[in-house]
Amino acid sequence: MAAASTSTASAVPDSEYDVVIVGAGPAGCMADLCLTTYGFKVLHIDNRSETTQAGRADGIQPRTLEVLRNIGAVPYEEGKAGLAKRLINQGVRVQEVSFWDPGHDKELVRTSRAPSCPDFIDVVDNYTLLLHQGLIERAFLDEIEARRTHLPQEKNSSAPHGNVFRPYEFLTCSTDEAGNSEYPVSATVRHGETHKEHTVRAKYLLGVDGARSLVRRAISGGKEGDGEWQGKIRMLGDASDIIWGVMDCSVKTDFPDIMSKCLIHSRSDGSIMVIPRENAPTGEPLVRLYVQLQAEAGPDGKQKHYGRDATEDICKERAQKIFSPYKLEFGKTAWFSVYQIGQRIASNYTLDHRVFLGGDATHTHSPKAGQGMNISMLDMYSLAWKINMVEKGVADRSILLPTYEQERKSVAEELLKFDKAYSTLFSGRSPKSDQLTDDATKAKAQGAVDAQLFIETFKKNAFFTSGCGAIYFANPLNALGDSELVKSYGKEGVFNPEGSNLTPGQRLLPGKVTRAIDANQVRIQQEVKMNGAFRIHVVAGDYKKSKSRLAAFDKFLDAPTSFLNLYRPKKGVQSAVVFNQHETRHIEPERGSREPNYNPFFDFLYIFSTPHTEWDIEDLPYNARIYREHIYSDDLPDRRAPQNATAKLHAKWGVSTDKGAIVVVRPDGYVGCVTSLDAAGFDGLNAYFGGFMSSPSKIRASL
Amino acid sequence: MAAASTSTASAVPDSEYDVVIVGAGPAGCMADLCLTTYGFKVLHIDNRSETTQAGRADGIQPRTLEVLRNIGAVPYEEGKAGLAKRLINQGVRVQEVSFWDPGHDKELVRTSRAPSCPDFIDVVDNYTLLLHQGLIERAFLDEIEARRTHLPQEKNSSAPHGNVFRPYEFLTCSTDEAGNSEYPVSATVRHGETHKEHTVRAKYLLGVDGARSLVRRAISGGKEGDGEWQGKIRMLGDASDIIWGVMDCSVKTDFPDIMSKCLIHSRSDGSIMVIPRENAPTGEPLVRLYVQLQAEAGPDGKQKHYGRDATEDICKERAQKIFSPYKLEFGKTAWFSVYQIGQRIASNYTLDHRVFLGGDATHTHSPKAGQGMNISMLDMYSLAWKINMVEKGVADRSILLPTYEQERKSVAEELLKFDKAYSTLFSGRSPKSDQLTDDATKAKAQGAVDAQLFIETFKKNAFFTSGCGAIYFANPLNALGDSELVKSYGKEGVFNPEGSNLTPGQRLLPGKVTRAIDANQVRIQQEVKMNGAFRIHVVAGDYKKSKSRLAAFDKFLDAPTSFLNLYRPKKGVQSAVVFNQHETRHIEPERGSREPNYNPFFDFLYIFSTPHTEWDIEDLPYNARIYREHIYSDDLPDRRAPQNATAKLHAKWGVSTDKGAIVVVRPDGYVGCVTSLDAAGFDGLNAYFGGFMSSPSKIRASL
Repeated sequence: MAAASTSTASAVPDSEYDVVIVGAGPAGCMADLCLTTYGFKVLHIDNRSETTQAGRADGIQPRTLEVLRNIGAVPYEEGKAGLAKRLINQGVRVQEVSFWDPGHDKELVRTSRAPSCPDFIDVVDNYTLLLHQGLIERAFLDEIEARRTHLPQEKNSSAPHGNVFRPYEFLTCSTDEAGNSEYPVSATVRHGETHKEHTVRAKYLLGVDGARSLVRRAISGGKEGDGEWQGKIRMLGDASDIIWGVMDCSVKTDFPDIMSKCLIHSRSDGSIMVIPRENAPTGEPLVRLYVQLQAEAGPDGKQKHYGRDATEDICKERAQKIFSPYKLEFGKTAWFSVYQIGQRIASNYTLDHRVFLGGDATHTHSPKAGQGMNISMLDMYSLAWKINMVEKGVADRSILLPTYEQERKSVAEELLKFDKAYSTLFSGRSPKSDQLTDDATKAKAQGAVDAQLFIETFKKNAFFTSGCGAIYFANPLNALGDSELVKSYGKEGVFNPEGSNLTPGQRLLPGKVTRAIDANQVRIQQEVKMNGAFRIHVVAGDYKKSKSRLAAFDKFLDAPTSFLNLYRPKKGVQSAVVFNQHETRHIEPERGSREPNYNPFFDFLYIFSTPHTEWDIEDLPYNARIYREHIYSDDLPDRRAPQNATAKLHAKWGVSTDKGAIVVVRPDGYVGCVTSLDAAGFDGLNAYFGGFMSSPSKIRASL
Repeated sequence: MAAASTSTASAVPDSEYDVVIVGAGPAGCMADLCLTTYGFKVLHIDNRSETTQAGRADGIQPRTLEVLRNIGAVPYEEGKAGLAKRLINQGVRVQEVSFWDPGHDKELVRTSRAPSCPDFIDVVDNYTLLLHQGLIERAFLDEIEARRTHLPQEKNSSAPHGNVFRPYEFLTCSTDEAGNSEYPVSATVRHGETHKEHTVRAKYLLGVDGARSLVRRAISGGKEGDGEWQGKIRMLGDASDIIWGVMDCSVKTDFPDIMSKCLIHSRSDGSIMVIPRENAPTGEPLVRLYVQLQAEAGPDGKQKHYGRDATEDICKERAQKIFSPYKLEFGKTAWFSVYQIGQRIASNYTLDHRVFLGGDATHTHSPKAGQGMNISMLDMYSLAWKINMVEKGVADRSILLPTYEQERKSVAEELLKFDKAYSTLFSGRSPKSDQLTDDATKAKAQGAVDAQLFIETFKKNAFFTSGCGAIYFANPLNALGDSELVKSYGKEGVFNPEGSNLTPGQRLLPGKVTRAIDANQVRIQQEVKMNGAFRIHVVAGDYKKSKSRLAAFDKFLDAPTSFLNLYRPKKGVQSAVVFNQHETRHIEPERGSREPNYNPFFDFLYIFSTPHTEWDIEDLPYNARIYREHIYSDDLPDRRAPQNATAKLHAKWGVSTDKGAIVVVRPDGYVGCVTSLDAAGFDGLNAYFGGFMSSPSKIRASL
């Protein structure tokens, strides 16, 4: 039943896996957790002999927290908190940023404060959560370990705790579709101490092994140098000459905002970013300082430019100068590092849709906006469900897998653009005008000093840095107005009906509703946990007015031509090993009379605008009733909805309570399409899913 | 450093303790946790060899959750959740109650639904949390274990995990103030297996050993019978002849509300209460059923009245009859018990203020309102801080300790009154009119049938059952208008200033504010965790207008005649071993120039109505600045505050932003007194604390 955990030293890989993951930082952990959840046999290696002990990435953004909450928690040891709650318990929150600049009569004054997640961003966790990367990695490993016990025996091979083999180095890999169509990838790894090599075969290999990715080098094919400039995959962009030191340390100071996130620009000694941190494991309070290291006169009177060789003492001395006139005394240092700012992105995320790159292996940039770990984790979160659907035989490989690079690369490009402007500004240089947002350009044109420009840039970009602004463009998954599907669709008003406030390619706007079965007040975006399934929200509006529409939908779902019946995996194939249960506690929904028409790749949720006390689950059509734990009333207050609306979520989503709508949310929480709740809309759903899904029989026929 | 944990078998008590606790149910666990937090050496025994494995009490009410959150969590094992969050993660929520009765044309119809915690009750956790008693006990024991590591060495004696010695039976106890003034209590306990007896001496003994309390019998002094009717402490009240069965079991049913709390009255087969439950440790979904067992014809045709000998099968059969026409099939039973309704209360909670009774040892009633465990835990929560203040030498023993019985007995009496009316109604009999609330009487007079009367009673009593309605009367701790202090006080308007919405003897109304030091959005009622200290809220109103008032308060606090300086424990004495730190992360508040005037029994919080971006901590008076982590702005939305108010918490509490006010909250979260924020108010504070506090020197002088 339980996965056999073996000690790290004695752990030896099997010869065949579904997926090999190289790198066990946050991105690799996310990949492992998702793929384990979907039921895959995973070999996960890392060249470090243990998890991160201090420092490195430390900021989790609001959208990432939303994702972590949606990943959910599998109950295991009594008293242990699940992934998201555990991290939230352990971290500290940044809800505001203070800006300090030289003043007219003082060396340093607070010139402005801004919320780190402004109120217009509609999120539950309206803060950045700070805690060090090791805590994050270990929370993931515990959750992976718990989920491995749910794997079927043939997928659950012996592995160390959390499924990471370490220290294991990646040596090389290759793909041979023709030679081995089932396990086309071959990878060679080596134990870091015994140096024993193992060659394993796999269906996929994920290279999330950091900025100097060996997987990238291996598939890039360059023979000389480090491979990345000569090979098929090139890192585009450049490094700047600005060097920063970063340290997690304890301090004593009279600087009043030391418990807040601060951006300090001194008159002539450069800049510092202060980041609050959770206490060290020893209980000692920590703070993170990013210290700009710039040219200054050396002991010999000559100008000295601190490079990557800058020492901790140089950083501390510089920090004290920037903080002046405030005192800054240093206690212990938990972690210290130096880095050079640069924005680079891989020209390709994959060459063959078998070996994929993600995380720092595909994009590097400055750490100060707290984005790197977030976007890296979400790379893998986004890839995993696509691999799942393809491997379970319900999606078209040639359509679905390319969307990974398309969607994630565009987000990374957006990040790099933002980061470049932000970093340059933060380092005290004027950005070029093409790096600015329109508003910042305007501010600049109006003669704003850099400090104001910086603050403007910061505020304007908060939507993006929260993670909520990571927007995907039109493709078969995102039925935007300019998508092929919608453009070429015969009827008007079927997709994105008038008034809709939800946008395909953006995250679902959250909201609280009453769950009819137990009257619990729940968050609709968290009701279906990550299980690889599409979430079909039937936003039904007024209960009485919806009756005939729901009856029609019920009939549609029963038809053999509906997406529900067309894209059905082979019997016994589940979308995930957890959170895949359509069973209802205590109640068997009319099993005697009829077999419920469940398809593991589709979950249904029904939301009425009528108060839940005024209707009964038992009176709904059969195909709604069988999802009795997912039937809701939109009868709760929501301060972000229009003031006078009675059905707040309908109003927020822009769904008419007279007509209703269908909102399809992808397994990763992004809106896929919005259709009308009528026969034309049902056809629209078929067209949407027909654009990228497949039935297993079809696939077999095409082979 | 860490408390030595010894195995249960080998654990042997020391000879002297501060407090002996008999019984490790929820009340005993609460007593242990609180007293450990306050730094006492505790011997805790229980006659069971392990924690509860199934069944028993299972409902935690909103106010109790508020208390558990306030008890906080000491960080210990990575990934473990603290007390409140752990329980909330593990339990299920009841947010609504459904009422089912015989209908005109159907055997059973849902006649009504009501929120279990109606919206007018201002609580964060607006639900009853359901989980079985063993999970609760074990969460407490883990938290106790973590806190024991913070005890000074001389208080931290060897004990099993969670500090409960088991199986240990209580034999007897006695008090001899004259013979041993330091350890006046003597108690004899016996190991349940080795039968080895130990006599220990203690300062206090707490009897929380249930309805058949041996401690009660021992101190009651009756020689015959079970002691409770003959002795000095009598159980007042009576048992009814109504018998109920209760079971935690898995079921299959087509009854639609099985996931909700339901009150079902059948036409002629009695009543059932359905309580949703968390899954069993095996993962099997459970439900709790309270089944009324009433007279019916036996197999011989004679009327049979089920008594305490009713079997599980009889209960199941009865349940199926009451559920009819819905099907009810039984799976496994995790727990089964039979009980007789009765309302009884102890005539005294203590005889000598050394041996105290609490929990079921002092009050018994029907379990169906989910009150017993809650009121029992809160008995001990209320007693512990009083013992702490007396033992640390800052409170007058003869004034403070008697308030325990006075306050908690009045709450228990209120509960029994409610429970009698509720149980009688629930068992299908008309209550006597003196058991009804006014509204229920009115409903009755209007010819309401019992079902309606029952629903009315339920709704009217929701405030009480939430725990928020546990109100204390005037005494030295509660400066109500009819208290001796306020009645005899010279000036008008000093206590309970005009407009105040806070009532001494009631819990502080909660609210969200911005913490100035890091702009975190926090709940003011949770900012000071349970640490044995009074919480002085300086609700300052408008920042500019408050300037002179705060300056005057600063001066007052410095005066040797202020309560802050009068009631100061001996050097080195802390109010608690955790949450007692007035140190601020990273910042030393001007230590060089002046020693901060901390007193561990008083915490100060400052709340301004002006947005936090418009003022600076550094500009506040010294005695405010030294509490820099407890300075707030009332600049957040609160939907329960008056609509147009800008400072929502000021408006909710009824504090003028022009004049401000001082709100003193007792260590248990109850409002103690509210005074004006001016010289008269400062004198009022001195008068209030002078009514029950003592300086250690004074006590020594009087000995």
